[in-house]
Amino acid sequence: MRNVIIIAAVILAVSMACDAAARGRRRFPVSPMIPADRVGDSSTPGTGNCTQLFFHQRIDHFNFEPAQQLTHYEQRYYVCRQEKWNPNQPIFFYTGNECNVDLFVNMSGLMWENAEQFGALLIFAEHRYFGKSLPFPGEDMPPVPKINFLQTDQALADYATLINWFKVTHNSTSSPVIGFGGSYGGMLCSWLRIKYPSALDGCIAGSAPIVNFEEMIPAFNFDSFAQTETLDASAAGGATDFCKANIRQAWNDMESLGQTQSGLALISEQFKLCTPVQSLDDVYNLMGYAENSFGNMAMSSYPYPSTYLLLGGKGILPAYPMRVACDFLNTNLTTPAERLAGLRQAIGVYYNNTGDVMCINITSTVNYATEVVDYLWGYLSCTTMFMPAGQNGVTDMFYNAPWNTTQQIESCNQQFPGVLTQPDWVQINYGGYGVASWGSNIVFSNGALDPWHGGGILSATAPAVETVLIPDVGHHIDLMFSNPKDTGAIRAARAIEVENIAKWIANKK
Amino acid sequence: MRNVIIIAAVILAVSMACDAAARGRRRFPVSPMIPADRVGDSSTPGTGNCTQLFFHQRIDHFNFEPAQQLTHYEQRYYVCRQEKWNPNQPIFFYTGNECNVDLFVNMSGLMWENAEQFGALLIFAEHRYFGKSLPFPGEDMPPVPKINFLQTDQALADYATLINWFKVTHNSTSSPVIGFGGSYGGMLCSWLRIKYPSALDGCIAGSAPIVNFEEMIPAFNFDSFAQTETLDASAAGGATDFCKANIRQAWNDMESLGQTQSGLALISEQFKLCTPVQSLDDVYNLMGYAENSFGNMAMSSYPYPSTYLLLGGKGILPAYPMRVACDFLNTNLTTPAERLAGLRQAIGVYYNNTGDVMCINITSTVNYATEVVDYLWGYLSCTTMFMPAGQNGVTDMFYNAPWNTTQQIESCNQQFPGVLTQPDWVQINYGGYGVASWGSNIVFSNGALDPWHGGGILSATAPAVETVLIPDVGHHIDLMFSNPKDTGAIRAARAIEVENIAKWIANKK
Repeated sequence: MRNVIIIAAVILAVSMACDAAARGRRRFPVSPMIPADRVGDSSTPGTGNCTQLFFHQRIDHFNFEPAQQLTHYEQRYYVCRQEKWNPNQPIFFYTGNECNVDLFVNMSGLMWENAEQFGALLIFAEHRYFGKSLPFPGEDMPPVPKINFLQTDQALADYATLINWFKVTHNSTSSPVIGFGGSYGGMLCSWLRIKYPSALDGCIAGSAPIVNFEEMIPAFNFDSFAQTETLDASAAGGATDFCKANIRQAWNDMESLGQTQSGLALISEQFKLCTPVQSLDDVYNLMGYAENSFGNMAMSSYPYPSTYLLLGGKGILPAYPMRVACDFLNTNLTTPAERLAGLRQAIGVYYNNTGDVMCINITSTVNYATEVVDYLWGYLSCTTMFMPAGQNGVTDMFYNAPWNTTQQIESCNQQFPGVLTQPDWVQINYGGYGVASWGSNIVFSNGALDPWHGGGILSATAPAVETVLIPDVGHHIDLMFSNPKDTGAIRAARAIEVENIAKWIANKK
Repeated sequence: MRNVIIIAAVILAVSMACDAAARGRRRFPVSPMIPADRVGDSSTPGTGNCTQLFFHQRIDHFNFEPAQQLTHYEQRYYVCRQEKWNPNQPIFFYTGNECNVDLFVNMSGLMWENAEQFGALLIFAEHRYFGKSLPFPGEDMPPVPKINFLQTDQALADYATLINWFKVTHNSTSSPVIGFGGSYGGMLCSWLRIKYPSALDGCIAGSAPIVNFEEMIPAFNFDSFAQTETLDASAAGGATDFCKANIRQAWNDMESLGQTQSGLALISEQFKLCTPVQSLDDVYNLMGYAENSFGNMAMSSYPYPSTYLLLGGKGILPAYPMRVACDFLNTNLTTPAERLAGLRQAIGVYYNNTGDVMCINITSTVNYATEVVDYLWGYLSCTTMFMPAGQNGVTDMFYNAPWNTTQQIESCNQQFPGVLTQPDWVQINYGGYGVASWGSNIVFSNGALDPWHGGGILSATAPAVETVLIPDVGHHIDLMFSNPKDTGAIRAARAIEVENIAKWIANKK
């Protein structure tokens, strides 16, 4: 299937959003773009309980000769529970990821539910270039000017600067500060602890794939994401082995059928496409589109229905959506038509989560917000957040599309001319697996069904680095509000996290 | 003495060199510019035992859109003992300071003398913009182009990148790497360990004044340098209390005398000036010049004669030069003429170290090399290496010249228009005193007679951070070659350092 890589590059331009995954290209370890009218669940606290503030933040922390006097921007952050807080009491600090920070204010139940017992203030800081934290306001539409200041090093320096300033100006230089973050936010949280231990006394890093990079020592398995998706679509993951077998066969079906007119017609019919496929290239695009849904469903492996990984739709994902998807593929389907119909229904669990989608439109998930986030994440991923993702169709249920560094760098140079991709910077700068031996005061939690967990820290020898692998769940569920359907393992993970927080706070005194 | 600050700014332009100190302005925690024909003492190993190499290094580690395709420069480093080294054996790594790296190759006896027992390779890396490591070659004369890449963060990233590359390309990813550095090099070494623990498994930081900054928590005593100089010129420092009293009175004498023609004549006569002073401003310049020598003599408080802190001259400083200088001031001198004559002889221990200086020329120490280094250090000190130094004439033997942040920033803006001075960045970025509680695998050593020691880490609670205060010595003597006149305390300090190195190497396995 030699054209897949090229097709993947096409997909990159249209479907990467503030959430998930596509095969054979740089991945997006993240979170959804949920519209503002959905995030404030009235039963739990959120932005409505906080004060929105802006910090006069330096644009460039590493160069002291600003061009055109562009020295500062207004970084948004929320402060919550200030009325219940006194100087030098603890601060819980969310290291915002690549979304409007409102999402994290409204999602981070672990912070809200444990603030009171520690007398903690909550701060949620927004990542530069996202939400309302625009270094060059009014110009967030691609191409974003001065996008070269969109960097993890700059973002971390923002957080460290904000924390230092906040503590000094609130006469709270003794406050223990505990960081929280999920996904890319978890990566930032752990890196903030590594790089600025005076800013952060400890970090709860949920589903943070900090070794999902090239040049790791030892090497990272680039196909790990696809392998966990495959696990989730198998008996071991709660479905049946028919599911992954049917999915794997379906790609072969589609490639074969895509080479004849009657085959193309069958594909269009079985997938209920709004616009029929006209060529093999169209089929490859459809395959990428179909595959993308599995990443999101796998991440959303929660024991209750969720909206977290949805792309701003009005619907909801069922509990364990991959298992629900597999319900359409759990028998020995013997014909291409059966498999394609099953696959269509399976991906419909994700794409037709509202139940009102009458036909499949493979560009339908794109909207303005996700386009901007795609662009911004694209820039990050083309510089240092260059996160490999491959698949081989043998150890996973997909098709052969190995990670190709050269191809990806070329693609980056097309999108961002002159940009220097740095595949080794995360190893050099953040130390890769090293944190497991020399780090301190970090809990790395992962869900065993989360396809990102293979890029996380799963064991550690350093006494003050704890790892928690939560069986039977997806992406950083432990950071969310507690739910009656939480498993014992989820509750146990949160207990370990709270225990560590208590210890870090006590040791600070 | 209200004009002193203005005068200090004048002095800045002419006398700051690759070494020491002047009152009431940003200080220079460093090392000498010894010409190449002096550094290779034939009795000890040095550059002649090493291979000089260049690494294709990134110019900007924090911005991935290079202007004009200026992406890399050639960073010099020396490799020594390679023929005695096998992959994955230890590496001793010197984090070069603001000088030609040859100096450190030839000075760092602690590395040379302990390499064999650990089977260690030696690497001495040169700091960007110094020596032969010029990002913009052939243009090292001020104004240096693109000087905005002269940054501690960039320098640290250089070292981390070089270490990672060296280990990977030499199949030595398991090699323990132990850092060494003195003065600014010691600051860099400790910061490299803090920021890049995967690059550096431990650090011997000699005389590293990492808290000699504004915005420290708790605050740093800006007058600490002057106070230790005063200690060195007193009975407690090995001289007599007459010495500091005469010196303190001499400044008053000079200011009074400087207001009359007969007084100016007396000053010129007693100081044997090449060019007579004509005004009070000339006298203030002379005072700054005289005062500068005390910083260098205090740092050079070694039990044997030394050349380390000399400015490239042909002479030599005696053992404990401050005590020798005080020999001219150790009685109760009752007239201004006596005190000025004594002061002239005292500073002559430093300025007339060759014994052939017939008259004092207060611009005589400037040469091309020191002018370049002055300029480069000036840039560092005007951005983040903004190191406060004041004096009050009460708790020290000088005159009232408190540290004045606003004045210093104005002076920086005159020299480097548009530069943004960041007095708080060292606290935010490197954590200030915090390393004493959360750091690991660092030995901070200081000499109790070294005026920089007050800006160092002198005690620690973190179990893997060790502090050593060596009585009766000056600036990072423990890093130098052993000498028959070394005191027991010097030998004990080195033993502690070697013990820690052994532990760090053992723990890596």
